[in-house]
Amino acid sequence: MSALFRLLAVDGVARRGRLETAHGPVETPVFMPVGTQGTVKSLTPDDVREAGAELVLANTYHLMLRPGHELVRELGGLHRFMGWDRAVLTDSGGFQVFSLSKIRTLREDGVTFRSPVDGAAHFLSPERSIEVQVKLGADIIHVLDECLAHPVTHAETERSMEMTLRWAQRSKAAHVTTTDGRQKLFGIVQGGAYEDLRIRSARETVAVGFDGYAVGGMAVGEPKPVMYDLTARVTELLPRDQPRYLMGIGKPEDLVEGVARGIDMFDCVLPTRNARNGQCFTADGPLVLKQARYTRDPAPIEEGCPCYGCRRFSRAYLRHLFMARELLAYRLMTLHNLHFFMGLMGAMREAIAAARFEAFKARFFRRYAVSSEPVSLDDDGGP
Amino acid sequence: MSALFRLLAVDGVARRGRLETAHGPVETPVFMPVGTQGTVKSLTPDDVREAGAELVLANTYHLMLRPGHELVRELGGLHRFMGWDRAVLTDSGGFQVFSLSKIRTLREDGVTFRSPVDGAAHFLSPERSIEVQVKLGADIIHVLDECLAHPVTHAETERSMEMTLRWAQRSKAAHVTTTDGRQKLFGIVQGGAYEDLRIRSARETVAVGFDGYAVGGMAVGEPKPVMYDLTARVTELLPRDQPRYLMGIGKPEDLVEGVARGIDMFDCVLPTRNARNGQCFTADGPLVLKQARYTRDPAPIEEGCPCYGCRRFSRAYLRHLFMARELLAYRLMTLHNLHFFMGLMGAMREAIAAARFEAFKARFFRRYAVSSEPVSLDDDGGP
Repeated sequence: MSALFRLLAVDGVARRGRLETAHGPVETPVFMPVGTQGTVKSLTPDDVREAGAELVLANTYHLMLRPGHELVRELGGLHRFMGWDRAVLTDSGGFQVFSLSKIRTLREDGVTFRSPVDGAAHFLSPERSIEVQVKLGADIIHVLDECLAHPVTHAETERSMEMTLRWAQRSKAAHVTTTDGRQKLFGIVQGGAYEDLRIRSARETVAVGFDGYAVGGMAVGEPKPVMYDLTARVTELLPRDQPRYLMGIGKPEDLVEGVARGIDMFDCVLPTRNARNGQCFTADGPLVLKQARYTRDPAPIEEGCPCYGCRRFSRAYLRHLFMARELLAYRLMTLHNLHFFMGLMGAMREAIAAARFEAFKARFFRRYAVSSEPVSLDDDGGP
Repeated sequence: MSALFRLLAVDGVARRGRLETAHGPVETPVFMPVGTQGTVKSLTPDDVREAGAELVLANTYHLMLRPGHELVRELGGLHRFMGWDRAVLTDSGGFQVFSLSKIRTLREDGVTFRSPVDGAAHFLSPERSIEVQVKLGADIIHVLDECLAHPVTHAETERSMEMTLRWAQRSKAAHVTTTDGRQKLFGIVQGGAYEDLRIRSARETVAVGFDGYAVGGMAVGEPKPVMYDLTARVTELLPRDQPRYLMGIGKPEDLVEGVARGIDMFDCVLPTRNARNGQCFTADGPLVLKQARYTRDPAPIEEGCPCYGCRRFSRAYLRHLFMARELLAYRLMTLHNLHFFMGLMGAMREAIAAARFEAFKARFFRRYAVSSEPVSLDDDGGP
């Protein structure tokens, strides 16, 4: 079993590295587009590749419910099923079970829940999650964790974090017996908004030993400064030679702040979901296309952007498509947003390699107008 | 003013020709994808071009209401606005006014109606329709006609047909004063299901004199054999050296039957709208992808089809996307259907050029399983 990660350069706490997966290299820091149901919404695999993505996230929860992991395996696994020959990461299904499903029972053993697709009862345990993820066949998979709704007390968070640690051990044991080492397994650091619990969770998860470490539960609830501080506190406890993944984060400013705190991997529905709501990301900040001022604007969404939409169409035309609820609007704006996110990650990688990350960060924040809208769920299951 | 049409070959009544437009040649018989709101739903102009389209239809009614013809003109005209450098045809807006809007008054002068977008009152007259179409800038435009809901009496059809003839004269007069000859104007033959009225309408519309002739009102109401017979009756009265366009038709079998009766041009929402409803066209007939038998089917929609979806994905995957309401399903199935329609037209053009059209037609009907579902509206304004 070869190592997943190579650390190529460090600039302060920021890291430039590379994941070596069974489906090719992934340059880090990396942003993963979210392909919840085995598709990055509205885009073909070629579109996603053209935007520069090397790794996409798919949601185990959604895929096990529809079309089912057995079917995906029968059709050659997730890569072949969705026509994507680069790397894929799956989460454990935990987050969605706890946020989207009606839970019937949560016990040490696992969780029983109802499928929102057809109402059928399903059981998810650490072993079952690994089994499903092995059948889906992603390059990077995750331990099952319990995800709490915020706010939540210290005692409850501690109980949950301790169970997640026991689940991590069971996940690891299940993983060892079922894979050939091509699928890498990540542990997940929990602990909510409590620094002492985050520290314990980080130390004990590392003690179990994984190919990489995700930081969970940061996308919900905590105010930004708390999230940034906790992230920094956690990453300093994680092994230097392994990748760190901040789950479900985030906005462009969060990506920059996360990299500044030693994070290597991110995913978020923001570029895809917000595109479908008419929000386009630019170096100056988000642009809300339905605003009347773009009605007759012949300029592209962002001057100099290499995406198809910016090369070919005016803001006026894209706004028309969006106002008329035309499907092409969602596609072109999604593609643009992915280009923007990929471009931002590429710029950060270059800055770290050149030991200029602090200057890059300062320049980014001088120009980028931060928006205050909240971001929720870490899947992309919405319309 | 050069001639729009060149007749290249005749095989029985079927015709092989070419439209020479200001935006390039269009080989006929031709099928026009419908781009109601200035976009062939879910596709980029490059997708539409790759499918083989040389001419697309856009709806004057929808575009005058949103984003407005003045805005389109300000942004360089319809071709530039929608990023399509091949030929465009617009209808007059009449069909949609009579089928989609709440009409306030219909008089000899014109028709006043309410916009479903914002409730505003609009007026459409022969002169106004020409003005709007000139501003949109399509290569082929149409006279305003009154479109009746079926069934309708002989007397009422006659009254309407006669007004449409007077409107045709006014449209032609308006067209002469407003264009440089690059925009070609088509007259429209009406007359409902009544052969005597169709004959009068054809003769008198030809007497007014246009660059081509559309046959309107066939998409609604008449049983198929009546429609086919009336179409044959009309085309034999139309000038041999000018193009004939059967509006809003149709299904693959209608295209073959229409070509067999001397039609050169077709448009229909079928390939685009039905794709969004999960129906894919193949040489064996329509395939309804949501059927359970495709759940684990590793085959493409149609073996040998050159479209992106058939080259890259299984029926099982496309079905999954469709069942999960993923936008990519609509796009890939639309693209497939357009490829099928374009392929069918190309095969008919070859057969006519080789004087084998009857054999082609017989072979088509031996294999193609005709579906009995009706087709309605000739725009593609639905979701």
